[in-house]
Order: sequence, then C-alpha cells, then structure tokens
Amino acid sequence: MPEVLFPLDSNRKFTEQQIIGHNRWHPDIPPAAVVKPGTSFRVHCREWFDGAIHNDDSADDIRDAPLTTVHALSGPFSVEGAQPGDLLIVDILDVGPIPQEDSGPLAGQGWGYTGIFPTVNGGGFLTEQFPDAYKAIWDFSGQTATSRHVPGVSFTGIVHPGLMGTAPSAELLARWNAREGALIATDPNRVPALALPPEPRDAVLGALSGASFEKAAAEAARTAPPRENGGNQDIKNLTKGSRVFYPVFVPGGKLSVGDLHFSQGDGEITFCGAIEMGGFIDLHVDVIKGGMDTYGVSENAIFMPGNTDPQYSQWLAFSGTSVTLDDEQRYLDSHLAYQRACLHAIDYLTKFGYSPEQAYLLLGAAPIEGRLSGVVDIPNSCATVYIPTAIFDFSVTPSAAGPVRIDAGPGAPRSVAR
Amino acid sequence: MPEVLFPLDSNRKFTEQQIIGHNRWHPDIPPAAVVKPGTSFRVHCREWFDGAIHNDDSADDIRDAPLTTVHALSGPFSVEGAQPGDLLIVDILDVGPIPQEDSGPLAGQGWGYTGIFPTVNGGGFLTEQFPDAYKAIWDFSGQTATSRHVPGVSFTGIVHPGLMGTAPSAELLARWNAREGALIATDPNRVPALALPPEPRDAVLGALSGASFEKAAAEAARTAPPRENGGNQDIKNLTKGSRVFYPVFVPGGKLSVGDLHFSQGDGEITFCGAIEMGGFIDLHVDVIKGGMDTYGVSENAIFMPGNTDPQYSQWLAFSGTSVTLDDEQRYLDSHLAYQRACLHAIDYLTKFGYSPEQAYLLLGAAPIEGRLSGVVDIPNSCATVYIPTAIFDFSVTPSAAGPVRIDAGPGAPRSVAR
Amino acid sequence: MPEVLFPLDSNRKFTEQQIIGHNRWHPDIPPAAVVKPGTSFRVHCREWFDGAIHNDDSADDIRDAPLTTVHALSGPFSVEGAQPGDLLIVDILDVGPIPQEDSGPLAGQGWGYTGIFPTVNGGGFLTEQFPDAYKAIWDFSGQTATSRHVPGVSFTGIVHPGLMGTAPSAELLARWNAREGALIATDPNRVPALALPPEPRDAVLGALSGASFEKAAAEAARTAPPRENGGNQDIKNLTKGSRVFYPVFVPGGKLSVGDLHFSQGDGEITFCGAIEMGGFIDLHVDVIKGGMDTYGVSENAIFMPGNTDPQYSQWLAFSGTSVTLDDEQRYLDSHLAYQRACLHAIDYLTKFGYSPEQAYLLLGAAPIEGRLSGVVDIPNSCATVYIPTAIFDFSVTPSAAGPVRIDAGPGAPRSVAR
Amino acid sequence: MPEVLFPLDSNRKFTEQQIIGHNRWHPDIPPAAVVKPGTSFRVHCREWFDGAIHNDDSADDIRDAPLTTVHALSGPFSVEGAQPGDLLIVDILDVGPIPQEDSGPLAGQGWGYTGIFPTVNGGGFLTEQFPDAYKAIWDFSGQTATSRHVPGVSFTGIVHPGLMGTAPSAELLARWNAREGALIATDPNRVPALALPPEPRDAVLGALSGASFEKAAAEAARTAPPRENGGNQDIKNLTKGSRVFYPVFVPGGKLSVGDLHFSQGDGEITFCGAIEMGGFIDLHVDVIKGGMDTYGVSENAIFMPGNTDPQYSQWLAFSGTSVTLDDEQRYLDSHLAYQRACLHAIDYLTKFGYSPEQAYLLLGAAPIEGRLSGVVDIPNSCATVYIPTAIFDFSVTPSAAGPVRIDAGPGAPRSVAR
Repeated sequence: MPEVLFPLDSNRKFTEQQIIGHNRWHPDIPPAAVVKPGTSFRVHCREWFDGAIHNDDSADDIRDAPLTTVHALSGPFSVEGAQPGDLLIVDILDVGPIPQEDSGPLAGQGWGYTGIFPTVNGGGFLTEQFPDAYKAIWDFSGQTATSRHVPGVSFTGIVHPGLMGTAPSAELLARWNAREGALIATDPNRVPALALPPEPRDAVLGALSGASFEKAAAEAARTAPPRENGGNQDIKNLTKGSRVFYPVFVPGGKLSVGDLHFSQGDGEITFCGAIEMGGFIDLHVDVIKGGMDTYGVSENAIFMPGNTDPQYSQWLAFSGTSVTLDDEQRYLDSHLAYQRACLHAIDYLTKFGYSPEQAYLLLGAAPIEGRLSGVVDIPNSCATVYIPTAIFDFSVTPSAAGPVRIDAGPGAPRSVAR
Repeated sequence: MPEVLFPLDSNRKFTEQQIIGHNRWHPDIPPAAVVKPGTSFRVHCREWFDGAIHNDDSADDIRDAPLTTVHALSGPFSVEGAQPGDLLIVDILDVGPIPQEDSGPLAGQGWGYTGIFPTVNGGGFLTEQFPDAYKAIWDFSGQTATSRHVPGVSFTGIVHPGLMGTAPSAELLARWNAREGALIATDPNRVPALALPPEPRDAVLGALSGASFEKAAAEAARTAPPRENGGNQDIKNLTKGSRVFYPVFVPGGKLSVGDLHFSQGDGEITFCGAIEMGGFIDLHVDVIKGGMDTYGVSENAIFMPGNTDPQYSQWLAFSGTSVTLDDEQRYLDSHLAYQRACLHAIDYLTKFGYSPEQAYLLLGAAPIEGRLSGVVDIPNSCATVYIPTAIFDFSVTPSAAGPVRIDAGPGAPRSVAR
Repeated sequence: MPEVLFPLDSNRKFTEQQIIGHNRWHPDIPPAAVVKPGTSFRVHCREWFDGAIHNDDSADDIRDAPLTTVHALSGPFSVEGAQPGDLLIVDILDVGPIPQEDSGPLAGQGWGYTGIFPTVNGGGFLTEQFPDAYKAIWDFSGQTATSRHVPGVSFTGIVHPGLMGTAPSAELLARWNAREGALIATDPNRVPALALPPEPRDAVLGALSGASFEKAAAEAARTAPPRENGGNQDIKNLTKGSRVFYPVFVPGGKLSVGDLHFSQGDGEITFCGAIEMGGFIDLHVDVIKGGMDTYGVSENAIFMPGNTDPQYSQWLAFSGTSVTLDDEQRYLDSHLAYQRACLHAIDYLTKFGYSPEQAYLLLGAAPIEGRLSGVVDIPNSCATVYIPTAIFDFSVTPSAAGPVRIDAGPGAPRSVAR
Repeated sequence: MPEVLFPLDSNRKFTEQQIIGHNRWHPDIPPAAVVKPGTSFRVHCREWFDGAIHNDDSADDIRDAPLTTVHALSGPFSVEGAQPGDLLIVDILDVGPIPQEDSGPLAGQGWGYTGIFPTVNGGGFLTEQFPDAYKAIWDFSGQTATSRHVPGVSFTGIVHPGLMGTAPSAELLARWNAREGALIATDPNRVPALALPPEPRDAVLGALSGASFEKAAAEAARTAPPRENGGNQDIKNLTKGSRVFYPVFVPGGKLSVGDLHFSQGDGEITFCGAIEMGGFIDLHVDVIKGGMDTYGVSENAIFMPGNTDPQYSQWLAFSGTSVTLDDEQRYLDSHLAYQRACLHAIDYLTKFGYSPEQAYLLLGAAPIEGRLSGVVDIPNSCATVYIPTAIFDFSVTPSAAGPVRIDAGPGAPRSVAR
C-alpha cells in the first residue's frame, strides 16, 4: 500500500481532520502535500456530503441535503516541477470503499447511497417527472452491490472517482465566474438554478485562513460542474488501471480528488445517481513537460480507461429522440434524446413490477451505457441507453410470454419537497 | 441464404428495378412483399444516394449531393397479422456489402465512402469548423476497412443498417409534420435548415402512382431523422445477431430498411459519417401481439445488440463540456459537450500529422464510442469519445517522447461550397 | 467478393469438379492455382466427407463414414516467390457456409452436423464411454445454430476452417511416415488405431495421374492429424480476421484448406465434434522472406485470432485431474484431465434432462473453452472446460432450488457399431 | 471489510501465529474457525514458502526451496450444517496482496516472485530444457506487475488463489495414498519424482498435537496436486467475483485456502510459475444441501469465473503437437502438445532479445491462455498458447521488417543445481 498522504479519520468531520481538504476550486488553496513526479501515494476520500446522508429508510436527508457543503475533496497535491502548459499523468492504481471498516455511519463503510434530488434542491436529469426526493441504500459484498430498496438486481461495481482535477489559474477561474454568471443572469430565479455562483457559506479551503480565506471564498468556483480542469466529470470508466492526462494551469498542478462512486451509469442521471461512498484512491503521478501544446490538450482531461471493468455481453437497449413528451420538436438536442431513452427504459422496467423511481435509481447506479448514437440527422438526435441483462435476477428481455412480475418490495423511500 | 424478397440489380437505378422501394415515410406505400411471422428473407439495399457518390479523388459529388433523393429504402415488408399495438421482432441474421461484386461504380462493390457535407448542403456535427465538402473512400478487405485518404489506420467494420423502421400511421405522420413544421417556422431560412419538410421532388413511393402518389408525396415524411418508428437511428450496434423490437403503427407493420454502413462511430458525426455502402441484409421477423402496451414501448425501437461486434480493450478517450469555443456557458447541453469532445480528439490527432478533416472523417467512420458521461452537474454536461488505439498503425497514446509524425499523404479531397 | 480460384459445384462430387482438390498431404501435388503475394481470393470448400453425411435422423452414415476419403481439401495454392524458410502470411478475410444455397443435401446448405464416431470407426475423445455412433443436425439461421437433436440451446457460431496448411517437403513427409509408422508398430491392431498410415485407396491427389499418382498415393500422409505444416489443427479461434503464419517447406508453399466448421468447442471432442459444413473462405496471402529463421518458427502455425468472435461474459466451468475413472493415478496427463473435466460437464448436464450423448455432442459443437489450468503439480494435471451460460434457453447454474428439467426431445440418433 | 477469521502477523513465521494453519490434507485437522452459512469473512494467507524466497538477485533460494514445507494454508473453516454430499458455495469477494504493507521481506509486501525449479528440486513443465534454478522478482503498482528481471513487459495481474479446497474424508485420503503410492512404485527413484508421498517432516497440521499429530502427519496428503477436493488447481480464472462449488466430504466441509497468485498464465508452467505472494482473501460461504447428487458433482470443483478479469483483444498464439523434440510420435498427448506450443513461444520471444528463461518465466506469470485445441486427430493432439500483445512495451507481432531487439538487461538470476 502506498504511503497515505491524505488521511481521514472516519470518526471526525471533514473539517476536523489532521489535514483539511477543500470544497471549492481556487488557485490559492495551498497544497496538502507536495510529491515528486513518479510518486505513488494513497488518498482517503470522504463521501461528497461528509456524512449527511444516512443508511436508513427515509429520504429526508436527501431532500434537505446541504448543497453548499459539497464536494468534500482531498488535496490539492502539488507535483514538483509541474508548470502551466504541462500535462499531469495520473494513474489510478486502486480505488475502493473505506478499507478495514465494514460498517458505520459513513457511506463507504460497507454501504453507499443513490439519491434523487428534489427539484427545489438541485433536481436531476428527469426532475420534471420526479420532483420529489428518493433514496436507495446499496450494500457492498466484495465488489457486488445490492439494495433493499431496489430488489431483484445485483451487479459488479464499476468503482471510480467522480471528481478529479487540477486547480484553475486565476485567469481561468475568472473566466468560469464570468461565463457562469452570465448564464445565471439570464434567469436568476430559476428552480433548479442554471448554475451555482461562488458561495462563501460552508466554503472549505484547506489551510487558507483570514483575509486570504475571505478573498478566495468569495471567488472560488463551486465543484458541481466539470470544467477545463477535469473536475466533476463523473466518467464511470475512470476505474482502476486508468491513466488520465490533466492540463496544468498553476505551478505544481494542484491535483484534487473526491466523490468516489462504487458504481454509476453513464450520465449519473439521478444527480446523486452513482452509488456514493467514501474510501481511498491510490494514485501515481508524473509529468509530460509542455504536453498541453505538444498534444493539443488545452483543456479537459484525456484518458485511457483501465482493463478490468466488469464485462457484460448481453444488453437490452432503449432509444430516444429529441422530441419532448409534449411532442415539441427540438433541434438536435442529444440531452433531450437521452432523457427520452431513459424514460423509455423506466417505462419498460415498471412492467416488471418496479416503481418508476426504483427504475430511475437503478439507471443511475448500475453500469449502464449511454451513447450518442445519431447527432446529425436533423432535427432529431438519437441517444441510446444499454442495460446489462445479467444484473437482473429474472429474465428481463421481451418475449411473447410477457414480463414476469417481481416483488419489488416497499420501494424507495420518498420525501416530498417542502 | 434466405429467399431474396427485394432484389436489386447493380446495373440499374433504384427507380428502374423490378420492385421499387421508397425514400419517404408514408402509411399508404404498398408493401413490396408480405411475409408470415417466423419468416427469414434477404433484402438488397442500395447505398443511400443511389450511386451519386463515386470512388474517386474529388469531393464535388459530396458538395452537390442530391439530398432530396435520400434515403433509398428497401421495402416495406408487411408481416401477416401484425396490428397496431403489436411489437415487431426483427432479427438481423446477416448484413454486408454487395456479395459477388467486388468492384464497380456502386458503393458496396468493394468500397464505401464517408463524406463531410458542406454547410450549405446539410452540414454536419462540426459544420462551423468544417464548412466545405470532403470525402474519404474506404476499401474493404473482408471485414477490414482502409482508406487512401486517411492513411495509417485499418479497422474491423461494425456493419449495420443505419436506417430501419416501421411505417407511421396517418395520425403519427401528421404529428411529425406538425411539430417539424413548427420548428422550421421558427427560422425558415436557416442554413443549414432546422428540419426538412415534405418534398414531392424526387419522392419515390414504391408502387404508388397517380393521385395516390401525388397525395402521399405531398405529405410523406423525409427519412433523415429518426422518429417514433425507429428510422434513421444510425445506431452502430445494430450488427449481425441483433434483435430489434419496433412498434407497429399500421396493419402489417410495413418494415423498411436501408442506409447500410460498413462501419460508423457513435453519432455518425460527419453527417455522412459512416462508411456508406449498398449491400444485403437478412432478416427474420416475428410479432409480439399487444407488445407495445405489455412492455410499455409506445415509440422508438428497443433492441438487443449482437455479440460479434469487433472487440477492443485499449481506448484513448477525450472529454468535453457544454461551453462553446467562444467561452459561452450553455446549460447542460450534451450535444455541445460531445462536439467539444470530438474537437479535442481532432486537435489531438492533428499532432500526429493528420489534417483536421482527416481526423474528422476518421471519427465518423471508425468504431468509436460516444458516451453521455455526466448530464446533471449544472451547468456543464460532460460527454466523452473513446477511440480504440489498435486501429492505428502507430502508437497514438501520449508519452514523454511526443507524438510520431506520420505521412498523412495528400489528404481528403475537398470541394469548396459554391 | 474476391475472385474464386477454387470453385465447387454443389451438384457434383468432389472428384468430378472443374478443379480437383486433394485428401492427402504430398509435395508433388501440383498447384490448383498460382497467386502473387498480396492477392485475395475465394476458395470453395467441400464438407470433409463430400456429402456422405445426411440431414436426417439416423446415425448410420456416421457409423459407416468412409474415413479413407477425408479430408476433402481445396488447393494447393502456390504463392509466387515463396521458398522454403519463408513464412506464409494468410489472412482469413471471410469464411462461411455455402452462399446462395440455403437448402440441399450438402452440409453447408443451411445445416451442418456433429457426429460421435463409434470406437470401431475412429472413436473420439470419450470413446470408452460412448462406443456407438451418434449424430446431431444443426440448422443455421444467420450465424446462429440450433438443433432438433439437442433442444434448449442456441449459439452464435465461431466459424473457422478446421484444416489449413502448407505442403510438406519430401524430407518432412518421410519423417512423418517414419515416426507415425513407429507408433503404429507398437500396437498395430489397436482399435481405434494409434495412427493412420498412408492409404492409396480413395486417395485424391489433384491433377496427379499415372505413375506419379501411384507413387504419391503410396506415401502421401493422411490429413487427420495436425503436424509441422499446420494441417488439421481444429483451432476454433481461426475466425474471420485471423492472421496465420505458416512455415514454407516447398517452393510456393502450396497452401490448402478445408474442413470448415460452423462452430466448435475447444478440442472438437466428439472427433467429428465441430458443426461440419462446406462453404467458402476468402484468403489474402503474403510472404515474409526468411521468416522461419527470423522469427524462430520452424514448424506449426503461429497466429493472431480475429476480433469478432462471439462474446460471452458468464461461464460455468468444470475441472478434471489426471486420475482415471478407475482411480488410477496418471502422471501429469493433461489429456486425461480434460477428459475428466468434460465427463464432469456431461454428468452435470444430464441433471437438466439431457442424455449423455446430447451433452457430449453439445460440448463438441458449442463455443466452449478448454484450458490447461495446471500442468506442473505432480502427479495431477488440472484441465478446465468453460461453457457459456447464455447458450441455454434456461438457467443452467447451480442453485438451492435444484436444476430445471427440460424436455430434451427424442434425443440424438444412435447407431450401434456393427 | 469482513471480519478477519484467520489473521497472520507478517513479522512471525507461519508456525508462530495466533492460529496455526496447515500444509497437508487430513480430515482430522480441527477447524481454525466455524462459520454459519451466509457468512463473509477475511482470511490472511502466507506465501506458499513462508518467506523462504527473497526479493534479491540470486536464485539460490529457489534452488534450495524447502518443498516439504509447502503449501502454507489458511484454515480449515468449517461451515455449520455442511454434511458429506452437500456442495459448498464459495464466493471470492476480494483477493489481493497484503494490505497496508507496501514493502518488507515477505512476498506480497509490494512484490512477488516467479521461480523455475531445478530438475533435482521438483522441476517444471519444461525441466528438460531448463534444468537449473531461475527467479524473477515482480513489483506491484496497483494491479500492475513489472520486473527488473524481465524488462519490456507490464501487465494487469489476474489475482486469484492457486489453492482452495475442502478436506478429504478418511476414505478419500486413503484412495489418494493408494493410487499415488502405486504410481511412485513404478519408478521410485525418478528425478523429478512421479508423486510425493506423505512426509511427516515439516508437516504443519493446525491444532493437532501429540499422537493425533503423529498419526495424521504419517498419512496426510501433500498439497501439491489438485484432487477431488479441489486443492492446488492453479486455475487463473478464480478471480474476484468467482463462485466456486466444492464437494463436501467431511462434516463442516473444512475449507482451506492459500497459495495466492498476483498473476499466472494457464498451466503455471514454471511450477512456481505464478507470481507468488501472501495476502488476503475475502470469502462468503453457503451450502446446497445434497448438491453433489442433485448436480452430479461427485468430485473436483465447478465454478463461475468473475467478470473483472483483465481484458485483452489482440493475441499472438503458438501451436504445438504431440511430437517430441526428438521427433518421436506420441499418441494424443495434449500435455506434450502444450509443452511444444510453449517452447515455440519461447523460441519466438528470444528473437526479440529475451533469454529463453526470461521468456519461460514470462509465460508462467503473465495472463496467457493455454487451450486444448484438438484432442482427437490421431495421433496428434494440438494445443495452443495465446499471449496478449498489449503486455509488451514494443511491437511483438511478426512483420516483414523483422523483430526489434530490446535491451533485456542482465536477465533472470540463475543458480546451477547442486
């Protein structure tokens, strides 16, 4: 096991640890540790809500989730010699839930959760159809996940960090704030919001304090969206064995990581759609000097996925196009097309006995594939979603005999938005 | 080999065949053949432009491609007993280029083409960056494709029909025309167009003639977009061995098929992005009575892909978010995110010696994967595109040594839009 | 389609064709055609018994199969410039059953067969347990095989040539005859035989005639065993897209091919264990001058399998060790270990309702994997056999509920050895 | 993490632990722990030689390896209610090297080893060609292995237990001793031995002591060979996520496990051919009452491999037949055929600069596939070995340009047998 450079004590809050992480992006956050190129090290990660979500049968915690506190990130880690213009090579040597702790109140201690956020608290991909809060708890057995809230399925987790990235430069941060502010300004009172502006409340900025903290907290970017620095990309394929190349915008690169997922479907569609957990990640870092220009990588990560993802060979797939449920034709809207494909999958699964929210939670958490199948055939995009049939305990494919009806149990806890 | 129910003579135009197909969707087009459930049959398919694109080194044919003539479709095939509300089970037993004809002027005779359409003639996914016409010719050797216009790559084709679907009912057709007309009306003179209205010019409607033809031609839907009936979904995974379930909207279902692709990347991003070809497809059809309601499939195909797709285990991937090149922030626009991911891939490949259009053509034709990775992290969607590294003759991954520079040859033919 | 260099008329016997193939190995057999390096060409192949096995419900034809007539091979094909010491590169561009002929009396016309040979006529891997003749007919639908004699299964064929190889030199042929003769001499009357000596009866030697024929027929090697020239290797993974490197022992290499299989399990355990068929194969040939020494390939083929083999992700596996059924301990006998693993699989499958011979026929024909798992742990080898669970229409894995019992129908035709 | 039922302290010998394991098979060894069906638990495992092999550049330790001390096994674990005739379901939840200990003198502390045993001390699969001792040390980085002794390769470990099984009944043990004794008696002085008789010296039998120990040590079976109880099967595919079904021969089943491998090729051909290590394994156990009869599993494990094995899509394969290097023809000897295939692979790899022993060590350790391709074509078996090309840092496939020559470094340490 590599040396632990960022330890977390499961019995203490994220802000009461030996080393304090951060939950905003800002170039001034000092490094939590400095490493040489070629170093391997272990990082503990707290689940993104720092323990606010519980292993119980109520969705109140999802309904009331404190979005200003996320994401609890570990780091930043500065790499000696890395300079703006370089590419940071990050190898994910290993990643998993909290070792040695099989049970406890923290997600990652033998369990994780998937949430559907209510519209008034962030919403999700299908928030129009699912305006309330729902939750599913998943139990881990080795790399397998099952849920009392979504019976009849069990699958191998596709474990990965939902969020990893380098620090923005001051200039880049200013661009983010400018363009996101401009978007917000087009509809400042929208629910859910169009974007999240800097928010000093609940900001955690590592070792920063005093005036430096105040200045940074006022302008630091929220961690929800992925951006030029990587960040919250929620790419389910960043599994063990992956190599990621990040652009370097500040000296040292300042790599941070968090938001570990035990599993996730493409899109993480319920917003808190993955199986959220705390845990550990082992990283190896190196540098390609001048790599941004050499390889034309000015922004966003490029990567090579690992080769141990769970394998499936039979899939049931659903398609959708960019027409709304009200039959309004949109122009090449792949986002809408994927929504429609997912809704089709949900409709289908309800025929087997699942509630719509159970199906929705499942699509967020299981290793489904979401593909942009057609993006040019005006006016309709075509998106497709592929579900591995082997995750079901029963036969889920269509036949002349019709669907079996499973006992879907009491279902997923729900909390009506206040 | 199953019986040929829809033969095509490679020496004659699509409209001069023994049985005439169609290039519009309309419920009144009479069946080209009627089959019983449980039947297997072979269908010949003409390439979508009926021979207008040539195996040469000029892109003039792409520039001037007659879009009103597409798609040359084979069918419709009525299935006895199929009624609205049923699901039509379509098994793709086999699909490939024109057997027995290894060379000739028709795409599918040992070769195929990929085109980038100019903005004034339809454009494509990245038409802002690529406003002119380009073409790549691909040569087939068994299931392998190579191109004199895109050297340094060779890959196993992921052969599939780009377009397959059932006929719309009159009511469904009316909905299509209404909603697409409404979209067009928002910007009727846009270039490229927002959608394509019915167009009697060049309409081919099977055995329809006289007043019936005139009526149908005036209201028949264009075949470019995928819709509730399946249609031009361009799902690259509908390979041999796939089973597709189509909703039935008219008695007999009236299945049609065409637009065969020797290979295609997710999205078919250059518009004519697949490797276009004529060929054959062997189908087996069956019916699930009442299946639309039983399985909740009111529209769009659901399907199970075959298990003989070309396998790759190492990928180089690129990510993008929903920010424009001008740094404008868009709200959860996965379409834009995929554009940015593709542009990143193109930028990268140019560092190895390819011209941008060669890279663009390659992404359209090779079996790349396009995924909706994050769709909920406001305001940025994250899309990713995965390129199998094994398709390159050289090492295409980043390293400290920097990229090799290949001899990319004279490049892809270009024709400036007039 | 590449030019047909070796045509076969399905209505005529193998010995009455325009070009006559061969069924023995001998350096003097003249080339059926001469090709340049870099050429692609099509070869028709007759099923190995030239039509002696019928699509019916009797195993008499298997019981009486004329083993002196096999294998009906197409070729040889001489490659210009190939000289002893070179490596012949053979690309399998495509391979399949007889195109255009969906039904007829020849295996390959929409159907194929698997046979268990009786002990007195060759036997098979488990001939002690299965001394009589059995047959299963398989029907082809696209690339899928099903059988009225083995109900409850359907699988994607892993199509390949069972036999391909170059001609031996006179010296190599002499070595074969010497060493195989020495083996036969140790037990010349064994049933089944230890090996098959040259047999002029039923010999077919292409264009050879007169004294040349007599001389060659007297010394030509039988085609049953694989040898230094490749030959009857029965490697199920030589599917479409494979590249094979054969040593060249005579000028031109003299490549021959035949014994096409629609599918086969590792080992081809029932002797005639694959799904036997006639059909076509498209080849591309090239030469690596001096390649045998350059790459240390003095004998036997080396190869790179294609990447479109049917994919499965769930397997049920059985193990065996080198102990006989009579509890006699053998020393590291992997052959015996694989027999025991296969017998375990057969025992298991009978619990679901199959007869032992149905299970045995299935293991010969379906794409099972046979692995040498442990070969050093004295005194026991360990071999394992992996069956893809998806080929069964029912759940075939063990559970507390016990096995389902299927209706295995009337079973496989049997003919008691005379 | 499940509860640790069998802890090991890395600083103490295997025989000085809190709970003592065993290195022989005997029904009288008392359970180390008793668990209920449905329980998950963690087991620590010592590397099979209990620390006798060092991370250095000498092969003396391999030459002198104390074979009477192996295998250091953890267990046995009794499952409540399991009775003879039942099947024990064992799920491998996780398996890996020693957590938390990245460096140290024990294999499993960040490193492992592969050994070629000298002929006088056990030998190996190719002991005639490799009579001396050799060693390769492999370093672990996440799930990736590299070696200073075999440069130019790096691969994802296919981590598994080499040895797992239930206890034999007294009757079964007696059968083992009888049949193995009979084999030894045929050539009692053979080097290497035909089999290993019971050996009281160095026997470790858990909590047994006194007369019980003496009796059991005199008759307990050695752990080298796999047998009816599973045991040292060295099945590389028993990776995380696998489910294994073991026959139960004694009350409680008495499951034991050990001989963890970081990786291994099919056959574990160098005898100590895997990458040997100590570590942990997490198991879940359950029982199918009466399962041996219900499913016809009277002996040997049946299993379902996990779905996270490292994936490769391009392979270079070698074939061999059952003819000796001296051109002696053997009858359907698949063991010999696999030896010849492996020797062909070794010959090939030496053309790239490797020494023969480097190539041999690599084939033992890397995730190569060994298949029984043809087992019925008298007199020659055909076996094949598949090497994933992606494990090499250079292009390893044949081409007209000839092989690259790598710098293979000082090579693998060698110790001449005394």
